[in-house]
Amino acid sequence: MDDYKVRFIPLGGVVGVTKNMYLYELYTNDELTDILIVDCGMGFPDAKEFGVDLIIPDISYLEDKLDKIRAILITHGHEDHIGAIPFHYDKLGTPQIYAPKLAKVFIQNKFKEFNQPIHIQDVDFKKWIKLGGFEAKYIHMTHSIPDATHILIKSPVGVMYHGPDFKLDLTPPYSKYPDFYEIISAGHDGVLCLLSDALGAEREGLTLSESIVGETFENEMRSTKGKFIMTTFSSNISRIKQCVDAAIKFNRKVVFLGRSMKQNTEAAKDLGYMNIPHTLKGKEEEISKIPPNKVCIIAAGSQGQYDSALSKMARQQNKYIKITEGDKVVFSSDPIPGNEHEVYALIEELSLQGADVIYSDIQDQLHASGHGSQEDLKFLARFTNPKYLLPIGGTIRHQRQYERLMTEDLDFKKEQLFLIDEGDTVWFTKTKAYKGDKVETKNVYVDAYGVGDIGNVVLRDRQTLSSEGMVVGVIVLNQTGQLVAAPKFFSRGFVFEKNEEDLFNKAGLLIEKSLNASKGVMVDGDNYKRKIGRELEDFFFQERGRRPLVLVDVIQV
Amino acid sequence: MDDYKVRFIPLGGVVGVTKNMYLYELYTNDELTDILIVDCGMGFPDAKEFGVDLIIPDISYLEDKLDKIRAILITHGHEDHIGAIPFHYDKLGTPQIYAPKLAKVFIQNKFKEFNQPIHIQDVDFKKWIKLGGFEAKYIHMTHSIPDATHILIKSPVGVMYHGPDFKLDLTPPYSKYPDFYEIISAGHDGVLCLLSDALGAEREGLTLSESIVGETFENEMRSTKGKFIMTTFSSNISRIKQCVDAAIKFNRKVVFLGRSMKQNTEAAKDLGYMNIPHTLKGKEEEISKIPPNKVCIIAAGSQGQYDSALSKMARQQNKYIKITEGDKVVFSSDPIPGNEHEVYALIEELSLQGADVIYSDIQDQLHASGHGSQEDLKFLARFTNPKYLLPIGGTIRHQRQYERLMTEDLDFKKEQLFLIDEGDTVWFTKTKAYKGDKVETKNVYVDAYGVGDIGNVVLRDRQTLSSEGMVVGVIVLNQTGQLVAAPKFFSRGFVFEKNEEDLFNKAGLLIEKSLNASKGVMVDGDNYKRKIGRELEDFFFQERGRRPLVLVDVIQV
Repeated sequence: MDDYKVRFIPLGGVVGVTKNMYLYELYTNDELTDILIVDCGMGFPDAKEFGVDLIIPDISYLEDKLDKIRAILITHGHEDHIGAIPFHYDKLGTPQIYAPKLAKVFIQNKFKEFNQPIHIQDVDFKKWIKLGGFEAKYIHMTHSIPDATHILIKSPVGVMYHGPDFKLDLTPPYSKYPDFYEIISAGHDGVLCLLSDALGAEREGLTLSESIVGETFENEMRSTKGKFIMTTFSSNISRIKQCVDAAIKFNRKVVFLGRSMKQNTEAAKDLGYMNIPHTLKGKEEEISKIPPNKVCIIAAGSQGQYDSALSKMARQQNKYIKITEGDKVVFSSDPIPGNEHEVYALIEELSLQGADVIYSDIQDQLHASGHGSQEDLKFLARFTNPKYLLPIGGTIRHQRQYERLMTEDLDFKKEQLFLIDEGDTVWFTKTKAYKGDKVETKNVYVDAYGVGDIGNVVLRDRQTLSSEGMVVGVIVLNQTGQLVAAPKFFSRGFVFEKNEEDLFNKAGLLIEKSLNASKGVMVDGDNYKRKIGRELEDFFFQERGRRPLVLVDVIQV
Repeated sequence: MDDYKVRFIPLGGVVGVTKNMYLYELYTNDELTDILIVDCGMGFPDAKEFGVDLIIPDISYLEDKLDKIRAILITHGHEDHIGAIPFHYDKLGTPQIYAPKLAKVFIQNKFKEFNQPIHIQDVDFKKWIKLGGFEAKYIHMTHSIPDATHILIKSPVGVMYHGPDFKLDLTPPYSKYPDFYEIISAGHDGVLCLLSDALGAEREGLTLSESIVGETFENEMRSTKGKFIMTTFSSNISRIKQCVDAAIKFNRKVVFLGRSMKQNTEAAKDLGYMNIPHTLKGKEEEISKIPPNKVCIIAAGSQGQYDSALSKMARQQNKYIKITEGDKVVFSSDPIPGNEHEVYALIEELSLQGADVIYSDIQDQLHASGHGSQEDLKFLARFTNPKYLLPIGGTIRHQRQYERLMTEDLDFKKEQLFLIDEGDTVWFTKTKAYKGDKVETKNVYVDAYGVGDIGNVVLRDRQTLSSEGMVVGVIVLNQTGQLVAAPKFFSRGFVFEKNEEDLFNKAGLLIEKSLNASKGVMVDGDNYKRKIGRELEDFFFQERGRRPLVLVDVIQV
């Protein structure tokens, strides 16, 4: 009889919240036969990651296993679950992608930007899809975006319940409530491991329904004499839809601002998730001609991004739209950790312009989390009744809290839980589960100029630059390695120019001395530069107590 | 093809909260063929029902239909679901009774008091029981008592989900969490009507797990230097078990006080629901010899009943147990509406004796409701996804709130809901449901002396007695109807004795006059008494402005 094993590898998503990407590997008689990829999302850099626009999962582990990849299964359309597909699709050998409706359109829109067509398979709920030695079945779930799903992954060792980002929303603003029958039937038939969202594990009770936000929009709109401006993530179609509905109720023309906001709402309209009567479709250019109390602007920029539509309005840089007294700006999303400073600065700026700014610190029901709280998480565990549990989508803190919930509130044993770090692997056989070796992963950084050419060194340099400044030294030598002129220095962000002269003279003497010491030895460019660089670093530290980034260039004439 | 109809008749339970008794009738071609009875509970009199010990459902509707009764299905062991069985069992023709374990033992204990053996069928969960034209299937549910159930009732017109008293407790102190698979499978296969508990429809969120109370007991016990005394309903086995567990943890001997408390805990121990090490089983008589901080007393009397074990202790009438400084008394149940006065009086009395009294006004987590809150109720409706909904087990106010929940929060239509009063009937066919004629029911009152011999007249009398007092007149006549002596009067609670003489003399003259007027007519005892009675009532009202209860006795010598 064949011996089967399944290995679970998170390439992202288990500790960083974002850049979700998970692998399920099937081994038959210790030979890797099939790989399923679930989600392929981007991460958001935190404040320590200078100048990085986004982070994507590291797929180098997969490079020599492309022929084993059976599919990418997408759970829902949030960026941290689909955002890395354009970067990785070709490198993964253009595998077939399955995605629920809204996610499908979002992914297709991304590929349009690159002028690359992409075929995405529709999801047939309640049916097993055969994928090599695996089978997968999608289950309808609720989250803060329509068409959110969970996935059952069946293999010869058992069924894994892949349960990312969800809350049990009995009254989602549209789409249906979770498919309890499928979830509980899975549990009834036997679930080997539940991989559960854990981000809300610290919050008591059940998470509020998305619908609560609709009421809040109505109440806030009712009391707004001027323009009503709402901002949230552009993928938060549920939220946007509820704001649109309120606008329709109060007869306000709806205007979308921001590229992604326009694109996503266009997609949502196409899918029938949003319906705006023709008379209430507004345009940016005409806003100044409409009475303010007949305007509803839905703008990107809820994270305080400098270049966003909302930030530009706040700085009065939108030539059609001026923020004035009587306007109301509603933030319907919380700052992502790390963005607090930018968000509060934007709130200040908007307030300065006279707008009434509403955000979740002062209004409870502006933002219902998309993630289940303790009771949601407990229900899912009870429904699926798994042999093992593995929290995903939270930080270590959330994982631990999830473990506490499952072992103290519910009656699971610690041995049934796996708390894992990125790249950690877990093996499953028919009879047991255990941690395997780590798979090496690193963050792959993307900025405006390219993918992956920013590494940890670049980031360290940027950090140094930001805190210690830089000094550039230029040394001109003749062919025999003698100084042609005194070394030249210039600096930025290091010390005041007035104080530099004396310091740099000393530094020049240091270089002369160093050159004399190595006299007779041919100058080896790179080594020499490094050596001088280190000496200068130490020198500046002794003299000024700082370690600026030191760049030395040697020119031989 | 045969034409089928099902009629639902609540003989109790739909508006009074208690005395739950429901009928399901099956009609084949308009002829009644089968009746199922669900529950047969007692009600608790309110303050207007003077001297009544309890109320039981009126089964006169069933008197000529005994041959159609297929079974009594009991959902759980609370008094308001089983308490009327001893009064009705024989009159119903000793039908077969199905009951889950704990309820079965509780019912058997009741019959032991009457020295009558009774056979009760065990419940086989997950299996359909054939009962005439009906089939029934029990589903494991959670409430504040172990072995709580819901019942599916299948008939040719569809499946009714009979869902009384429940909360979705994911962590019941013992027994398992609800059988979600069975519930949702019912919904998946199609539920014609959900009959749902509605008592918690006003409370937001999910109801707390029963387990929360265990933690509270531990915390309260930890800080108690003297005796720890806990009181709750004697059927609240979950609660009692958690107190016992805390006592074991703190090495306190457990003593049960009160007849029903002893009986029920004995039954629970027999069923394995409670385990007390031999060394911690205490006796009332030995308490004075044990250090107070090694004692845990669990006493009946949480409703302030005058004759209860707890009330007697409070009045220092227990010869073995004295309440003293350092003792703590924990009320782990709220007053039933109408009992507030007695409960607070008891709390005062206990406090006066020096005990530290803890009750839910000052401690939130002493008492988790056994009834689901809004989210529990919404979950059940989503799980079962019924065509019609019918709230039971609440008052009109709760029914309305349930309707609001289902139609505003969820998306059911008002036409799908039936809000009904006791005796109201609802007809179900394969295609529709509609209200039928009312079935006449009245309250059947029980006091220490008998069943049903207290009617509304008795209650009115008791009310009169309590507010206006009474006057008894004795008239002695000879065989020809002439007064042998002046009529005699005595009174209680009417007017001060000092003022009576003159009044009663006048009354005597009134009677003489009345007798003279009817001279020659043979005295017809009863009529004459009634006539004289009415005349006296009017007379006393004219004279004193009160209407005492007037009793006239005529003795012929």
